[in-house]
Amino acid sequence: MTSRGIAEGILFTDLYQLTMAQLYFQRGMHDTAAQFDYFFRETPDYGGHKAGYCVFAGLADLLDFIGEMHVTDGAIERLREMRNSGGSRVFGDDFLHWLRSTGGFESLRLRAIPEGRVVHPGAPLAVAQGQLAIVQLLETALLNKLNFPTLIATKASRLKRAARGAPVFELGMRRGQGLAVNTATRAAMIGGADASSNTGASLLLGIPPVGTHAHSMVQAFIAAGGNEIDAFRAYAETYPDNCLLLVDTIDTINSGLANAITVFEELRAAGHEPIGIRLDSGDLAHLAIVCARELDRAGFPDASITLSNQLDELTIWQVLTQIEEEAGEYGVEPERLVARLRYGVGTQLVVSGGAPALDGVYKLVALQRGDDWRPAIKLSDTPAKVTNPGEKTLYRVYDERGMATADVIARTGEKLADESSVTLYHAGDPEQSRVIQAENISSIEPLLEEVWVEGKRKTERETIATLRKRRLDDESRLDPGVLRLLNPHVYHVSLSPALWRLKRELIAASRAG
Amino acid sequence: MTSRGIAEGILFTDLYQLTMAQLYFQRGMHDTAAQFDYFFRETPDYGGHKAGYCVFAGLADLLDFIGEMHVTDGAIERLREMRNSGGSRVFGDDFLHWLRSTGGFESLRLRAIPEGRVVHPGAPLAVAQGQLAIVQLLETALLNKLNFPTLIATKASRLKRAARGAPVFELGMRRGQGLAVNTATRAAMIGGADASSNTGASLLLGIPPVGTHAHSMVQAFIAAGGNEIDAFRAYAETYPDNCLLLVDTIDTINSGLANAITVFEELRAAGHEPIGIRLDSGDLAHLAIVCARELDRAGFPDASITLSNQLDELTIWQVLTQIEEEAGEYGVEPERLVARLRYGVGTQLVVSGGAPALDGVYKLVALQRGDDWRPAIKLSDTPAKVTNPGEKTLYRVYDERGMATADVIARTGEKLADESSVTLYHAGDPEQSRVIQAENISSIEPLLEEVWVEGKRKTERETIATLRKRRLDDESRLDPGVLRLLNPHVYHVSLSPALWRLKRELIAASRAG
Repeated sequence: MTSRGIAEGILFTDLYQLTMAQLYFQRGMHDTAAQFDYFFRETPDYGGHKAGYCVFAGLADLLDFIGEMHVTDGAIERLREMRNSGGSRVFGDDFLHWLRSTGGFESLRLRAIPEGRVVHPGAPLAVAQGQLAIVQLLETALLNKLNFPTLIATKASRLKRAARGAPVFELGMRRGQGLAVNTATRAAMIGGADASSNTGASLLLGIPPVGTHAHSMVQAFIAAGGNEIDAFRAYAETYPDNCLLLVDTIDTINSGLANAITVFEELRAAGHEPIGIRLDSGDLAHLAIVCARELDRAGFPDASITLSNQLDELTIWQVLTQIEEEAGEYGVEPERLVARLRYGVGTQLVVSGGAPALDGVYKLVALQRGDDWRPAIKLSDTPAKVTNPGEKTLYRVYDERGMATADVIARTGEKLADESSVTLYHAGDPEQSRVIQAENISSIEPLLEEVWVEGKRKTERETIATLRKRRLDDESRLDPGVLRLLNPHVYHVSLSPALWRLKRELIAASRAG
Repeated sequence: MTSRGIAEGILFTDLYQLTMAQLYFQRGMHDTAAQFDYFFRETPDYGGHKAGYCVFAGLADLLDFIGEMHVTDGAIERLREMRNSGGSRVFGDDFLHWLRSTGGFESLRLRAIPEGRVVHPGAPLAVAQGQLAIVQLLETALLNKLNFPTLIATKASRLKRAARGAPVFELGMRRGQGLAVNTATRAAMIGGADASSNTGASLLLGIPPVGTHAHSMVQAFIAAGGNEIDAFRAYAETYPDNCLLLVDTIDTINSGLANAITVFEELRAAGHEPIGIRLDSGDLAHLAIVCARELDRAGFPDASITLSNQLDELTIWQVLTQIEEEAGEYGVEPERLVARLRYGVGTQLVVSGGAPALDGVYKLVALQRGDDWRPAIKLSDTPAKVTNPGEKTLYRVYDERGMATADVIARTGEKLADESSVTLYHAGDPEQSRVIQAENISSIEPLLEEVWVEGKRKTERETIATLRKRRLDDESRLDPGVLRLLNPHVYHVSLSPALWRLKRELIAASRAG
């Protein structure tokens, strides 16, 4: 058994999942059917700005994990060797035998919202049902494999919006968090990145990786006795149809840009058109304006200008604002310049700068007793932290314009669509409700799909193109107030009347007991 | 070839490394010996507080990567399939043949500072020499595999200091960044965490994983018709020698603590001593005081109190300060309470909350021409960003007290120790220098070791215990001002006289040319 097999298989879990599973086994509770909901409580708060929505991602990797999961002899052996401080074994043979024979997640039923969908706080995005011990053992991996990609897809969506739809390239693997960068590359592409410099991950996803050269190439030519233009000429010769030159190694305007234009002219004389230039330092807005003017004058109005250097959504917004204010002074048309911009986004995208973790949780909401599901609730002094109990499903309500107006968590079997009006209750404040008349509802969409049932995966891995289209469709049905980067309007995630009643009853009963 | 083999092998790189390597190959520059330095420019700035030092980690994993790296047919095939926008191939057969035959990193010479050492901004921590194309191809993996672990070991060291040396447990894998959590677990242990809940990673490192139970266990017993105390009893029965109870599922003091004390009494009657309780919500300082008083009164003065819930170094500091101010009012001796505290630190540790990326870079500093190394320099308008050119080595100077007073970057062959005094120059400001008399120097320690030479690894993977001892030794030789959590004193990383002269000459020559 390889180290990686140990570290990324069934033992990719917090120890308490295993100690609890053994306890359930010893008490005969392990077979009891249980339901856990996955949801996040807050959209990422980047410090001074906060997301108005998230983009769900990571499900395909989670399903791969579930599908490939087998409890191996090697893992069992490691658990058998574990000792308490007193020297006795932590895990007994009976439990380990059960764990080995139960194997993976055959008994699991998992429903989830498809990847690429726009999602909101408090709404259950994945619902796991199965033997208590098994769904408990899934917790750590599920959270690890959904929280992070959703975080990154969300950041990418914001960057793509800040860039007004212009190409965004993910370049973050050098400063990203270890192997997480491969997960980040896929999530970024679902969320809004057009391509990535991450070669292996990109090729696996079928999206050609992107890149130009580094400052070190120019330095190497200089150290070898040459100059910047020798480096540029070499690059143009090797990549005549992919000639994107990094112009800020020495002096952006006086050296880099001038040399690039010379090489672009030579390239054109040889029958090729350049891709453009990249700026990686300095006042990006100002330099972009001057470079645009010079490229225009030299006859390269279509050469693109790629910006990079610690960009995030607010920096991009600020750069575009500055260009709109300053370009005119240099005789550059702001709109034309903005249209030729591309963005290279690295660290801030792949680590989700400002908010490097999503607070997604996985909470027990129901346990079977006899033939019935018995709802479980966790109280809290913070009303928003009281869990929504019981078996449930999730709907999205679209208004008469076809725009998403609320997500509604309802009890299983409860028919929202049959009503002449729908009453929606606030998840945290029982006094707040809202009525939507049937004529103001264009459709009510169930959001959760079965993705894993009785040991079988129900959905295939989808292409990035499919997931991007799904995200764009959802974004187009969000009001601008929810989409905006700063201080977004809060989208409603509400409770159905039946769920609201159940929750109130359970809270009252718990407090009385 | 597996997906993972593609995504985590030689193609775990930014595309530009490969396109540059091909360019060097086509120009016959690929064989030229080159040197790249790895260093970081700034310690992590967590927003309002900034580290005074870092703890170096990740080298063992980097050496594993280098050692296991083989250019496979599968990777070559993927590169062969890549097309430019015009349809022509990106990589030619001649280059791919060379890449395949050159294989991995046989020609590499890598020097590095050992893992666990305290390190400072601007000092070269790893120095790679070898064929230009090969050392260039190493960049992305090297940065990925050193930046992140160093970031996490640093955060762990700060947490351990804030905890005044008390046990710190890493519990972050549920909200960490994907598979990076396994890397984070090891780095956290090097930096200061005593153990982790990450089962697989802990077992591989030989440090027993830790854990108790979740709120869901109490909820499950309640939903099954029982109560909190039934859950606690079951846990004590299954784990009589590891009985740590999470007491905040319902009501910390009135329910959780009271039930825990009852179960502890039963446990003691059965011949076992409890480990203690865990608090995961509410006012941790206040609750710890009340719990300590009640545990004392009940005859459990040695039961530990583990605190968790979004802890970071400042929160721990604040909790301890509050305990010192408030404990007396409840008749609790603050020192005794502080001594029984343990800390569970999750997300903030494994993602390095506040500063989720280290700005480590890898810069070309020398290229061989004939028999000589020719220094390379990258200019910048920011003096601190001008690279330190040429072949070099790194020393640490200890003063007459045996305390580290400066790190000095020197030219290879330059003898610092022979001088009757040492003059140290500021790396960014040529006008600033400092003279240390020989009698004020107790030792000068070379910091870089050969770790990879001519295809052979020169150092074995070390135990966590060894790395922790190394870190503690280094921390004990740092002045308190450098160690402090807020606004630390800046430790000097200086240039030797010969390096300072070389840098000035090269800057003058570059500006003239």
